[in-house]
Amino acid sequence: MATPVYSGATRTPQRGRPRDASRDEALRRAALEVMAEVGYRALTMDAVAARARAGKATIYRRWESKLDLVIDTCAQLASQNLAQPDTGSLEGDLRESLRSFAAFLSGPIGKAAQALVGELPHEPELAVAFRETFLIAQREVLRQVLDRAHGRGELREGAPRSMAVELAGAALTYRLMLTGEPLDEAFVERVVEQVLLPLVAKGQ
Amino acid sequence: MATPVYSGATRTPQRGRPRDASRDEALRRAALEVMAEVGYRALTMDAVAARARAGKATIYRRWESKLDLVIDTCAQLASQNLAQPDTGSLEGDLRESLRSFAAFLSGPIGKAAQALVGELPHEPELAVAFRETFLIAQREVLRQVLDRAHGRGELREGAPRSMAVELAGAALTYRLMLTGEPLDEAFVERVVEQVLLPLVAKGQ
Repeated sequence: MATPVYSGATRTPQRGRPRDASRDEALRRAALEVMAEVGYRALTMDAVAARARAGKATIYRRWESKLDLVIDTCAQLASQNLAQPDTGSLEGDLRESLRSFAAFLSGPIGKAAQALVGELPHEPELAVAFRETFLIAQREVLRQVLDRAHGRGELREGAPRSMAVELAGAALTYRLMLTGEPLDEAFVERVVEQVLLPLVAKGQ
Repeated sequence: MATPVYSGATRTPQRGRPRDASRDEALRRAALEVMAEVGYRALTMDAVAARARAGKATIYRRWESKLDLVIDTCAQLASQNLAQPDTGSLEGDLRESLRSFAAFLSGPIGKAAQALVGELPHEPELAVAFRETFLIAQREVLRQVLDRAHGRGELREGAPRSMAVELAGAALTYRLMLTGEPLDEAFVERVVEQVLLPLVAKGQ
């Protein structure tokens, strides 16, 4: 599992109550839905509470602000949903991790992330937290794929690993957020075959 | 100059008045500023009029809706500010066109475009128009760079031209909108040297 770096989003439960994990999940799902619909700025704890049919106090016992709630939601989803494949080959690992990232972005998290992006310039704390959870989780997966490939001798000398990691994220989010072209298996295949393998694999 | 495809954003002046180009420019600049501050959804013609110290009627004589105003602004800026270099070499043209696009994105248009992105899923007309002006203008510049390089015999056989065009846009907007890492000359240089030339140039 990818380990997000951001750690400010959870709150120690007060009054000795045990956390109800399924309740937390329902609240995070509600937060995602509301964010995808109205964006970060217009999201309120009231709207999330109403969507989840919970009391506002329940939310505030768990997250101290909407920033905490949104970031914890992104971090949790990234760590639960990004595959960390280890197929034994660079090509297999690239394909699996990009497929997983494309599927992740195509779901509710993609819509919510897109709604967040417009707010990042106005919300410095959100921007830092978004980068440290959502973006870093995906980068870490690919960085490890390339490190293992390097260990197996599959990379060519001087392969631009950081650039390859960045490009993979860029190519997928550009389709999701800007061009609206399909983020499907055929596209993942082209990114792997036409871009990533030629850039980093030995003998290409 | 890049020629945007979208043509619905201008309005024939009514009552035989000649257009005042500098007034139009001031209104577009005001629209950009307001959009960068509050986003597309919260932008009103009133706010743009107030910013430009113009009457609302002046705006409505020129653009029939805020969609028209915003899209015309994006199209105009893209056609005025994206260089269409013809240095005689693939490497020179790639470097110049990416530098120009990076500078374009780093200015006020970048902030406004970022504010638009979060709204695209909710505003289908805006999404179509944004893609047909802002995105296509930049793609067209690069496509022509690659076509000329092909004519000079500088591309390798089977070079993935569409993918190279898409990646260039993706790499730059990803930094601008998501990672917040610098969109500077050093980065443009890395994209040209580590990605675009290796993917498409002969003998790389």
